Amino acid sequence: MRVDGTAYRTIWPAADGAAVEIIDQTKLPHSFETARLTTLDDAAHAIRAMQVRGAPLIGATAAYGLWLALRVDPSDASLDAAADHLVATRPTAVNLRWAVDEVRRAVAGLPPGERAGAAFARAGEICDADAAMNHAIGEHGLALFRELHAAKGGGVLNVLTHCNAGWLATVDWGTALAPIYMAHDAGLPVHVWVDETRPRNQGAALTAWELGRHGVPHTVIADNAGGQLMRQGRVDVCLTGTDRVTARGDVANKIGTYLKALAAQANGVPFHVALPGPTIDWTLSDGDAIPIEERAGREVSHVTGRTDSAAIREVRITPADSPVANPAFDVTPAELVAGFVTERGRCAATAEGLAALYPEHAAVAAA
Amino acid sequence: MRVDGTAYRTIWPAADGAAVEIIDQTKLPHSFETARLTTLDDAAHAIRAMQVRGAPLIGATAAYGLWLALRVDPSDASLDAAADHLVATRPTAVNLRWAVDEVRRAVAGLPPGERAGAAFARAGEICDADAAMNHAIGEHGLALFRELHAAKGGGVLNVLTHCNAGWLATVDWGTALAPIYMAHDAGLPVHVWVDETRPRNQGAALTAWELGRHGVPHTVIADNAGGQLMRQGRVDVCLTGTDRVTARGDVANKIGTYLKALAAQANGVPFHVALPGPTIDWTLSDGDAIPIEERAGREVSHVTGRTDSAAIREVRITPADSPVANPAFDVTPAELVAGFVTERGRCAATAEGLAALYPEHAAVAAA
Repeated sequence: MRVDGTAYRTIWPAADGAAVEIIDQTKLPHSFETARLTTLDDAAHAIRAMQVRGAPLIGATAAYGLWLALRVDPSDASLDAAADHLVATRPTAVNLRWAVDEVRRAVAGLPPGERAGAAFARAGEICDADAAMNHAIGEHGLALFRELHAAKGGGVLNVLTHCNAGWLATVDWGTALAPIYMAHDAGLPVHVWVDETRPRNQGAALTAWELGRHGVPHTVIADNAGGQLMRQGRVDVCLTGTDRVTARGDVANKIGTYLKALAAQANGVPFHVALPGPTIDWTLSDGDAIPIEERAGREVSHVTGRTDSAAIREVRITPADSPVANPAFDVTPAELVAGFVTERGRCAATAEGLAALYPEHAAVAAA
Repeated sequence: MRVDGTAYRTIWPAADGAAVEIIDQTKLPHSFETARLTTLDDAAHAIRAMQVRGAPLIGATAAYGLWLALRVDPSDASLDAAADHLVATRPTAVNLRWAVDEVRRAVAGLPPGERAGAAFARAGEICDADAAMNHAIGEHGLALFRELHAAKGGGVLNVLTHCNAGWLATVDWGTALAPIYMAHDAGLPVHVWVDETRPRNQGAALTAWELGRHGVPHTVIADNAGGQLMRQGRVDVCLTGTDRVTARGDVANKIGTYLKALAAQANGVPFHVALPGPTIDWTLSDGDAIPIEERAGREVSHVTGRTDSAAIREVRITPADSPVANPAFDVTPAELVAGFVTERGRCAATAEGLAALYPEHAAVAAA
């Protein structure tokens, strides 16, 4: 997508062939900066520190991370250690594991001298495939929006989203935001309620930023506000991304998603989840079996932002002696989800719905 | 309650008889400061700027505000103007209107020379009555906690609360926190999940502060986290305050309360609301008729806290060009509320339940 008129992806090979470059998302929305990853540790750090975030972009970064490791040491031991190191950075992210496995498969059996090149090529393919998948998600989501807009009888379609499932969370287009960009570009009037998404404020910092750069009408709200907006009939559809969907359709996503799904159900608002196929964990059925990452308490007790004098400052908002807890994800049971929007089309949030779209995986899962 | 060993109320007449003093709650949790209110405008500003907040404390401050106005000009015109000025500061707060009416009644028909004194006396009575009411709420809530603790079979009773309904929100004791203080003092093991309560962070700043000063175990969480904690069985009871309860039991409270009530219902967690009788608006039945205050967007786009070098700084967390919305309250339908805890005992969140506890008001409302 575009930033001040220039087309960007969120990750791309450096022109000199010696690194991969990313948008440093920890600097947004106050400063647009790119960062250069030259080692495996750089890639792992970028994932862990959330310079890159979002399931597909984490996967792409991990794929390039394996390339960076194999460039230095193409041995099996190096490959194994790098894979373990990368997978450990974000245990909830199934895409990360998928991308690492893809690259491992691509280099398996190759002589050491060819491994880095094969990893680099596979990482690039993963990126291209992600952009194409998200484009397809956008088209299927646009069809959903057109139906909802027609059912509403025209006017502005109000979409509520949580966290950032935009192009910043992917290689390009985004998942939940892809249909929004396409609707806006197609002249379908959309307005987005952007949950700020405490504690890391990805909605306020990232979703609002990227929607603003593209000119999409949006309003930032506290996470607490969405329920009341739904009670007042001011939300036509909820659309979020996800970090992991189980084979029966339970949805792990940024903490707070579940509360919005409850409010949507209580108020007759359709709650949809946009995802690329690799986000589905066919090995799990019950969402409660997904491990919930507990992140540092400092993300809750401290907030980073920009002062009026343009300095970036971190401030504490809690008493110095108060404990904090920071579960990073929650699980929304499939029963609360009206449907999934995938690169292959839409389906019900059920085992049958997912199996119909992905028969090849469903068959393996059932075996 | 106590702050570093010294007993305080949240509002008290100055020793010199020329002002009323308050704890400046905008400075918490980083700094404990008191402020001196010497004029009607000081009182109105303290309410509007949320140096004082919480329905009962707002009412007490407004009562003293009328005294400050009548001290300067005891005419009917002055009284009317002061009352209008104070009521306009927080349109959702029914206690404010009640306290203003109480003082008006106390001075009605008195010669001008006696009005200020009568207003001062009535304001003091309102404060004493509030402290006594909250003490009674605490006793009835403690009985509820004992029942829940016994039903759980012992262990720690985990209470989730939203916003600040503690002693800082009242004259003393608090509403939702009164039972918690009493339980803690009585040796019933309680632990409090404290919603940070965006956008003003009253939970993180005030509830955590006052619980910490009293030594009550607590953990601050993002507002987004409560749903997942309830899914995991880590919340035994929700207990919040309220700004206004309708005659049929709909609850207006700080934005985000409704989402927790939905999650409580979905997970079999009892959701209770603590309130003093004056918080009930007998003139309204349908909670959706309560006007929802829309506050300044800057409360969402900016966060104030303390830097590591002990400076208080306000930082922007949203892009400079992103619009924000800030509805300050939501309405939780009575059907989601397991029960009310009042100074007269507990009741169901129904018209019948409230009428049984307050027959004198219910009769008037039905007339």
